Amino acid sequence: MRAIMKGNTGVWVMTDFNVLLFDGFETLDAFGPVDVMGRLGALYRLGYYSRYGGVVASQQGMRVQTARIAEMDRRGVLLVPGGQGIRRLVEDKAFLSQLLGLAEDAAYVLAVCTGAALVAATGFLDGRCATTGKRAFHWVQGVRPQVQWVKKARWVVDGKCYTASGVAAGIDMVLGFVRDVHGMEAARGVCEEMAYKWHMDEDTDATFP
Amino acid sequence: MRAIMKGNTGVWVMTDFNVLLFDGFETLDAFGPVDVMGRLGALYRLGYYSRYGGVVASQQGMRVQTARIAEMDRRGVLLVPGGQGIRRLVEDKAFLSQLLGLAEDAAYVLAVCTGAALVAATGFLDGRCATTGKRAFHWVQGVRPQVQWVKKARWVVDGKCYTASGVAAGIDMVLGFVRDVHGMEAARGVCEEMAYKWHMDEDTDATFP
Repeated sequence: MRAIMKGNTGVWVMTDFNVLLFDGFETLDAFGPVDVMGRLGALYRLGYYSRYGGVVASQQGMRVQTARIAEMDRRGVLLVPGGQGIRRLVEDKAFLSQLLGLAEDAAYVLAVCTGAALVAATGFLDGRCATTGKRAFHWVQGVRPQVQWVKKARWVVDGKCYTASGVAAGIDMVLGFVRDVHGMEAARGVCEEMAYKWHMDEDTDATFP
Repeated sequence: MRAIMKGNTGVWVMTDFNVLLFDGFETLDAFGPVDVMGRLGALYRLGYYSRYGGVVASQQGMRVQTARIAEMDRRGVLLVPGGQGIRRLVEDKAFLSQLLGLAEDAAYVLAVCTGAALVAATGFLDGRCATTGKRAFHWVQGVRPQVQWVKKARWVVDGKCYTASGVAAGIDMVLGFVRDVHGMEAARGVCEEMAYKWHMDEDTDATFP
């Protein structure tokens, strides 16, 4: 997959890392991955987008400024967090149609927890393997049974689609993305900067110690 | 310490969880703990504050809306994240004076990573034990040598002051705070909801797996 994001010269082209936000998104689903990607210096340009732009409130009441989706460089990496706000959006045909286009155009699509339900609802994951938050697993399966939902996984990679289990698994998945695209040393360096103990086995989910 | 936050009847009084933000704060230092505390339902009211109010940009370019410090219920729990923005603030006497008052009035003061340097610079931690991000340890020591800086710790509790090691350690520390104040079952429940593998030993720091 690396070739997608490199120029013909083999030199990395700065890529947009587009965080898609909506009212009721789960704070850590979005901002755990953001903290990881923000450590890759000049490789990524982080941006925060929502359907209409303006202020969007997370499930924890944090109000963040966003640009409109229309302003996004759609060829970047797309991050879709989960959260209670998902429940309404999976019924919103106009939004799903817009999101399908974003997912198709993106170099990679990364979805955390119930964010996978939102991407799945567009049909984009049909026939692909994916996972989601285990507490919402049954509901997410019902949203789009055409997806090959994997129950036992910290995260799942299928082509350009990365999907993570619950909340904190988003950090582990994004570190996996960094490893896959930039190599283990890059992922290791980020972990050290963040003092983060990476749950690096994507096939087993975290449990309480 | 529980008595501080309970009414005379033994019934929990809803407490403000005040997140102090500034330009250049580290996203996860603030929003990891926020995601934890947001799961305690009606026990806490989360609020986001900055010196002048308005929009504050994190180190990762995330722009969040804040209220002015003057609007804060200062008797709540105060969270101070770290980040590059700290370097300027530790020299700002007017801000440090304001922060000292906030720390004195708060039921608890929680500082993550170099956020501990900011609280320390007010003099509030003089003579107390505290820790900070290990990558910035030497610099933080120099900011306020009067603090008993603990090098080997995931987080340190001294009276009403909690201080955490680097970035992700803030999540572990806040889970420790939840355990101390609300009991292990509450902390365990939050971990399960977040699919988070808690580094629950406060005396050892995380290392790369």
